[in-house]
Amino acid sequence: MPDTSWIAVDAMGGDEGLAVMLAGVAAARRRHDGMRFFLVGDEAKVAEELKSHPNLSQHSEIVHAPETVGSSDKPSQAIRRAKTTSMGIAIDLVKQGRAGAAVSSGNTGALMAMAKLALRTLPGIDRPALAAPLPTLGDNDVVMLDLGANTEVDARNLVQFAVMGAAYARTIMDLDSPRVALLNIGSEDQKGTDEIRDAAAVLKGQTHLPLTFTGFVEGNQLARGNHDVIVCDGFAGNIALKTAEGTARFVADLLKRAFSSSVRSKVGFLISRPATELLRDHLDPNNHNGAVFLGLNGIVVKSHGSANERGVATAIGNAAKMVRADLTRRIADDLGNFEKKAA
Amino acid sequence: MPDTSWIAVDAMGGDEGLAVMLAGVAAARRRHDGMRFFLVGDEAKVAEELKSHPNLSQHSEIVHAPETVGSSDKPSQAIRRAKTTSMGIAIDLVKQGRAGAAVSSGNTGALMAMAKLALRTLPGIDRPALAAPLPTLGDNDVVMLDLGANTEVDARNLVQFAVMGAAYARTIMDLDSPRVALLNIGSEDQKGTDEIRDAAAVLKGQTHLPLTFTGFVEGNQLARGNHDVIVCDGFAGNIALKTAEGTARFVADLLKRAFSSSVRSKVGFLISRPATELLRDHLDPNNHNGAVFLGLNGIVVKSHGSANERGVATAIGNAAKMVRADLTRRIADDLGNFEKKAA
Repeated sequence: MPDTSWIAVDAMGGDEGLAVMLAGVAAARRRHDGMRFFLVGDEAKVAEELKSHPNLSQHSEIVHAPETVGSSDKPSQAIRRAKTTSMGIAIDLVKQGRAGAAVSSGNTGALMAMAKLALRTLPGIDRPALAAPLPTLGDNDVVMLDLGANTEVDARNLVQFAVMGAAYARTIMDLDSPRVALLNIGSEDQKGTDEIRDAAAVLKGQTHLPLTFTGFVEGNQLARGNHDVIVCDGFAGNIALKTAEGTARFVADLLKRAFSSSVRSKVGFLISRPATELLRDHLDPNNHNGAVFLGLNGIVVKSHGSANERGVATAIGNAAKMVRADLTRRIADDLGNFEKKAA
Repeated sequence: MPDTSWIAVDAMGGDEGLAVMLAGVAAARRRHDGMRFFLVGDEAKVAEELKSHPNLSQHSEIVHAPETVGSSDKPSQAIRRAKTTSMGIAIDLVKQGRAGAAVSSGNTGALMAMAKLALRTLPGIDRPALAAPLPTLGDNDVVMLDLGANTEVDARNLVQFAVMGAAYARTIMDLDSPRVALLNIGSEDQKGTDEIRDAAAVLKGQTHLPLTFTGFVEGNQLARGNHDVIVCDGFAGNIALKTAEGTARFVADLLKRAFSSSVRSKVGFLISRPATELLRDHLDPNNHNGAVFLGLNGIVVKSHGSANERGVATAIGNAAKMVRADLTRRIADDLGNFEKKAA
């Protein structure tokens, strides 16, 4: 049983640097009383930066790591330096049971490879998947997976992703029987690849799992709030996630341009600013930060590389929630039940 | 040489029905003087509806089709009814050289299958691809292909799509050497599938084609205006296109909600309405309607199933532009040069 009050933070990962990471941890600490943090990185630099956060320094411990994984390092290179890098050591603290979760804003491929090697997959899982909650028009976020860990998958992988995604939604979003859909290029039965159609057939046939299979969903329905979990391979998931991010930014940029196109529209913008700020808040990726690798013996959370202080705090808050809800055991239980009934 | 002043319209396809199709054709006719139309469908119904458009009726000819392809008909069923359906007969008018292009708002899979069977692919092309211009922040639209015609592709297909997409951009957007990128889940060389990496290697190696290969592009860059053509398989393309549509609608819905959240924001909205209307106009899919199957011996344009009158008119206008620019010959020439130099 890991120590659930500790979270291991890769203090050196991410585009924004150590200062932003520590400011984010400090902000998370203020929100989540009782959490404690391993700050993994260059000891001297972390200690220096920590002076700005006396509140955090009382509740954290620095763990020295002589090296850092670079953003362009190949996963195969990174895993050879698992014992010396801040990312590798943070994951190792989870493996040792000293921390309930590891959080990193570093290189996704390296994080995945290191986490898989150190923590191993849960029984019955071939490949872990990267899952994250995304905003919708409905009351709840929608959990989407895989978001880029597995470029190619088979039907069995997709079914496992569905079971893991549903366990995540039950645990984190308090849903009894999450509505799970497969991402496809049409809603009709014959659409898509063999892998997707085969996975749909398996999910349709199951009646003993705590999930409701809702069939195929197209890209234009992701944010409608009609599904709780959306399952796809990592290539399609990454394309959809990044296209959604890019389109939201595109519309915001057009809006900015439109609002500054005349004096009249500038006045209108100033008057309605509280409304547009609400919108910006709803769409800000820093408010939805914290993807998790599902299917491992331990919780590893990927924070966005460009996350700001608030984004890092959100990711750490999500990690804390997963640890407290005992997400890993819940997923293992659901997978065990699925394999048993399916056998 | 097809008769370039005639366009064959599948008057019965689309979710919105015959009235919207004919109103769209009438609107296109007002914009494009000199165009003439074959209106293919149930003769009595088309004649009745045509009474509302005296301007159009002078410049069109009704071609009777006893049947219609349904939105859920399988392509394999549809092609057996090529000679009796409005969709099949419209394509046949192109094959006969009586029309320069066919336009349909009907079932995409059936349209693709019928068009491929009737018109055949250009020399050197294994599979046609569905291409459409999408809005960007830049001065030009970006052409994206394939948008759903081919679920799975190999590297050779992707290279052909790049050549065809560039020929389209040269012809329709008047660019000398369009910037062509491959859609991928990262910009680094090792990212993505074997097919994408192999296609990148071929495109990098070419120096004799009128295009500039710009490498990999991620989903968040589609609308930035940094590329003229984006190439992908039909699965990823369909996911990206529909996710972009859905996200734009999502943001617009959030904006509506934000603007109506208080009296103050409602007032601001009313004042800035001209600006928000500019935005709506820029994003309205009816202003970007008209995807084309590239790689066939003839022009077949797919109008969005839910296109309104303006959307249908846009699609027909795009078809007219492709016919006048002799798009099919330009693509065949570029493909011929590519094959010759590559040999």
